[in-house]
Amino acid sequence: MSRFWSSLVHELKPYVPGEQPKIADLVKLNTNENPYGPSPKALAAIAAAAGDDLRLYPEPTGLALRAAVAAHHGLGVDQVFVGNGSDEVLAHTFQALLKHERPLLFPDISYSFYPTYCRLYGIAPVEVPLRDDFRIAIGDYDRPAGAVIIPNPNAPTGIALPLAEIETLLAQDPDRVVVIDEAYVDFGAESAIALVPRYENLLVIQTFSKSRSLAGLRVGFAIGQRPLIEALERVKDSFNSYPLDRLALVGATAAFEDQAWFETTTARIVASRTALVDALAGLGFSVLPSAANFVFARHASAKGEALAAALRSRGVLVRRFGAPRIADFLRITVGTDAQCERLIGALREILDESSSH
Amino acid sequence: MSRFWSSLVHELKPYVPGEQPKIADLVKLNTNENPYGPSPKALAAIAAAAGDDLRLYPEPTGLALRAAVAAHHGLGVDQVFVGNGSDEVLAHTFQALLKHERPLLFPDISYSFYPTYCRLYGIAPVEVPLRDDFRIAIGDYDRPAGAVIIPNPNAPTGIALPLAEIETLLAQDPDRVVVIDEAYVDFGAESAIALVPRYENLLVIQTFSKSRSLAGLRVGFAIGQRPLIEALERVKDSFNSYPLDRLALVGATAAFEDQAWFETTTARIVASRTALVDALAGLGFSVLPSAANFVFARHASAKGEALAAALRSRGVLVRRFGAPRIADFLRITVGTDAQCERLIGALREILDESSSH
Repeated sequence: MSRFWSSLVHELKPYVPGEQPKIADLVKLNTNENPYGPSPKALAAIAAAAGDDLRLYPEPTGLALRAAVAAHHGLGVDQVFVGNGSDEVLAHTFQALLKHERPLLFPDISYSFYPTYCRLYGIAPVEVPLRDDFRIAIGDYDRPAGAVIIPNPNAPTGIALPLAEIETLLAQDPDRVVVIDEAYVDFGAESAIALVPRYENLLVIQTFSKSRSLAGLRVGFAIGQRPLIEALERVKDSFNSYPLDRLALVGATAAFEDQAWFETTTARIVASRTALVDALAGLGFSVLPSAANFVFARHASAKGEALAAALRSRGVLVRRFGAPRIADFLRITVGTDAQCERLIGALREILDESSSH
Repeated sequence: MSRFWSSLVHELKPYVPGEQPKIADLVKLNTNENPYGPSPKALAAIAAAAGDDLRLYPEPTGLALRAAVAAHHGLGVDQVFVGNGSDEVLAHTFQALLKHERPLLFPDISYSFYPTYCRLYGIAPVEVPLRDDFRIAIGDYDRPAGAVIIPNPNAPTGIALPLAEIETLLAQDPDRVVVIDEAYVDFGAESAIALVPRYENLLVIQTFSKSRSLAGLRVGFAIGQRPLIEALERVKDSFNSYPLDRLALVGATAAFEDQAWFETTTARIVASRTALVDALAGLGFSVLPSAANFVFARHASAKGEALAAALRSRGVLVRRFGAPRIADFLRITVGTDAQCERLIGALREILDESSSH
């Protein structure tokens, strides 16, 4: 509290990201990073750009990157917006497209940054409860609202909605913006980008942090019809002319164009997920059906908080959310097979110890 | 205009940065970039970091970079805030510290992004006219206001305020935040950072884009006492957890620590500025006294718009602002001596041609 603060600052409840500790030999399964490195072509592009030209401003609109994304999806370059991580794209989206007189709808269990954005921009949210099986029921969104945002697959549950359900949501009210936050879509869900030409109220947001393995480079993008993209551009150009640096622009462009690397590493993670789910089930966990690069799992008897702490003391980091209904769940990033085995080994030890007491 | 836009989007008047054209053999003196490359140590640090670790999120608070800046100034690490270019730092500052019931004061001729931020955050500005000699008179700011922001040296005039004047401004109202935007301070003005321990209402903002020659990397920072920095942290953590990517963090840290490179290149630019001012005066320009890496110059007879266009057709880019009182000025970045000579040669041609007609 300070007399120098704007009144807004007092209201904020900042988002707390998963921790990034500096512990040697850590198995870090808490922030959904990709266990494989980025495309070697991305690294080569960055190395080539790391020279004297860094004295010059970047191209302010990210044109080359937007062109690569647009070409892949058969869209126009002016239907793509890029930002400094999908979090920045989301922030601009909340300010430009999700703030209306009627409330904003999103699931009560979802990306925990959404309520934070609402406070930052003075948006009134209505949190729509997930059903008892932790699924989104699209019928629950058929109510008056200014806009809707839903992650697909949802986080932290990992559960995906089929495209037909997204289409139902889009058709419920054509005057209502629907944002589909597809941070994890490449690990097993269907992207709504295919619907963009048919729905003027649809904005799809993706990130380079997960399936492109570039969390450290901070690049995200949005795809939609021109009026939605123009709104984001207007806010961006009132906030920061050059949100993406030269290295991020070339690295992300090269990563996006290396489809083979993307497909190979993504398939490997999906295969590891299957093995991880089986092993967790074998230890007495129930695991929600995941279409993401993480699983959300609850043990039949052991408490989530105690499990997370015991894992941490064994050098394995997972994420836990304190919220009601999910307090006993662990959100576990799918690592390499070796990392998953270390997790399973540690869990087996912890559960054996607790059952022998 | 779109029914999907929040009401804010309709109000915005986005900032237009200087153009970044792709023309071969261009003498680009329009966006105040450094003509010399960044520190080779910064490039080496970036090359070393451009590996598989890009799959991991960056350290979210920029701790190592903040520590380097804090150590240099003998301040605590928690008195330093870093952001994605000083434009992002400015944006958060407007939202967190410059929005109050009473108006925000800044010079009428100043960084043209300030009115844009005011629209973005619903801040009421009062633009305080520069005096007839284009100087800021600190006495003009001794009036009721919620906050003040002043660039030092001012842009686009290049005129610096002595530290004693800044101190007078700080003492006018200890309950009023004063932001000193020091994007160009290293080229000849005195930094107000030295005043931070004594004035709790002072925030100083600097950038890596000019004197550190890293416009392409997008790094800026703010220095102030703890309550001001905490306000920026609260907004940042409600907007984007990781605004600086891994490469920007290591590159900026290494650049900041290479004091010798910084001093050598800055001194070279200051020397070139002296020669440029003399040459412009010899062609009939009056040049405002510059403490920046640009000069602001008006010809005795030739019109600014015609001069800028004629320069452009000769492959020399300078910046011109259409605003009243400064419409005939050119803002010319101090380039290498060779670039400055090309500019002067082109101007001589243009002026010779027009006087022979």
